[in-house]
Amino acid sequence: MVKKRPVLKESEFFSKGQLYFLPHISIDCVIFGFHNNELKVLLLQWKETLKWCLPGGFIYRDEHVNDAAIRILKSRTGLEDVYLQQFYTFGDPQRDRGNHGVKQKKNSWINDRFITIGYWAIVEYSQVKPTADEFSKTCEWWDIDKVPKLILDHNDILKEALESLRKNVNEYPVGKNLLPPKFTMPDLQRLYETLLGKKLDRRNFQKKMLSLDILQRLKERKSGVAHKAPYLYKFDEKKYQRALKQGLKFGL
Amino acid sequence: MVKKRPVLKESEFFSKGQLYFLPHISIDCVIFGFHNNELKVLLLQWKETLKWCLPGGFIYRDEHVNDAAIRILKSRTGLEDVYLQQFYTFGDPQRDRGNHGVKQKKNSWINDRFITIGYWAIVEYSQVKPTADEFSKTCEWWDIDKVPKLILDHNDILKEALESLRKNVNEYPVGKNLLPPKFTMPDLQRLYETLLGKKLDRRNFQKKMLSLDILQRLKERKSGVAHKAPYLYKFDEKKYQRALKQGLKFGL
Repeated sequence: MVKKRPVLKESEFFSKGQLYFLPHISIDCVIFGFHNNELKVLLLQWKETLKWCLPGGFIYRDEHVNDAAIRILKSRTGLEDVYLQQFYTFGDPQRDRGNHGVKQKKNSWINDRFITIGYWAIVEYSQVKPTADEFSKTCEWWDIDKVPKLILDHNDILKEALESLRKNVNEYPVGKNLLPPKFTMPDLQRLYETLLGKKLDRRNFQKKMLSLDILQRLKERKSGVAHKAPYLYKFDEKKYQRALKQGLKFGL
Repeated sequence: MVKKRPVLKESEFFSKGQLYFLPHISIDCVIFGFHNNELKVLLLQWKETLKWCLPGGFIYRDEHVNDAAIRILKSRTGLEDVYLQQFYTFGDPQRDRGNHGVKQKKNSWINDRFITIGYWAIVEYSQVKPTADEFSKTCEWWDIDKVPKLILDHNDILKEALESLRKNVNEYPVGKNLLPPKFTMPDLQRLYETLLGKKLDRRNFQKKMLSLDILQRLKERKSGVAHKAPYLYKFDEKKYQRALKQGLKFGL
């Protein structure tokens, strides 16, 4: 549940934001979007400098860090109940590198050093209504391999998020909210190929997926396919949820 | 390289530590020790309250967060060049739960809310000289399953660190600095069993380990064993380092 919070006007934010927010700590969200076998990332463009950045924000003084991430995600996408994964905290004192989204604000808390906590989420991007914040001109999806130079260390944060996402794809189930409720094995394979950024062997993929024991094969086949219609599958909700908690591989 | 930093006296620390350190952010280190097939964790006992806690500290205003963790690890163990893994940032505003190691200090920055960044390390504990800090009575190894009630949310942090360690053991090579340079397969198996907290099948373990291609079997066998002396192995340094970077399993 996200608590209602005061929304500061732009000038108030720079001059007295520190009364509401913790100083020196920010959050950045890498919001991945999947649609039509493409992977995208949601970026904001600053009004003042027209530079691009990840959606981010600050933590109210009495707010849980995870709730702040949920609030930021919701305000940029309209989505709630999204799988949001904290992946790393970036603490280089030089991480700003003078590459800011706003011009210097005199005597503002915002000029101080910030440590940022990184989260990623993955959403079906046709469900998202990208919404700019008060400092931004626009909020848009970008192809993952066409991302421009971003402010601060945001390109590095995106790179780490993508690595974390790909590791996660090998460890936890993925697909709910990204695929329709009923899908074919080729649909699922294309999702994995898009997220992992590489081609996968069809037979190995199917064998592996079935061995995970999170899929339920339906009696119906895909309609509108003349010849050798592929089976439809759905996720077994209970097993999927259990795998989300326990992970898919235990190795040794 | 760890930069020299001013060390504050106890009273100075509480009254003006915020001039040197970032407010609201701390670091906690979960230092696991392996020795004689036992897993231990390094704990400190506060002078004032005799309560136990994880070794931790704060971040100098111009210090990299990772350097702060290295500094804290070094000052409690004497060790440098240890594999140190950031695993999670704990951001519950209620994480102190009134369960402090020190009595309330009037008007001190230390009474504020702190978000803490968790790191874990694993060391051969006979190499460590446990060293208390200025606030602690003692610094000692504890059996992992006999850890007492700790201050704040430190028991939760320890639990998460152990989970992260075990996940890591399945993803990256482990053993260097924990085993002698030459070791037998049973030595290696006992290390894994201790870290994972469970028994492993001998044959599967050997097969899996050899398939990882990070071990080099030596011509000599273990001496002093009358009958069927086991082979000695060492890590292939190049392959070990590469596996540390790339991980051991790629799944799909």
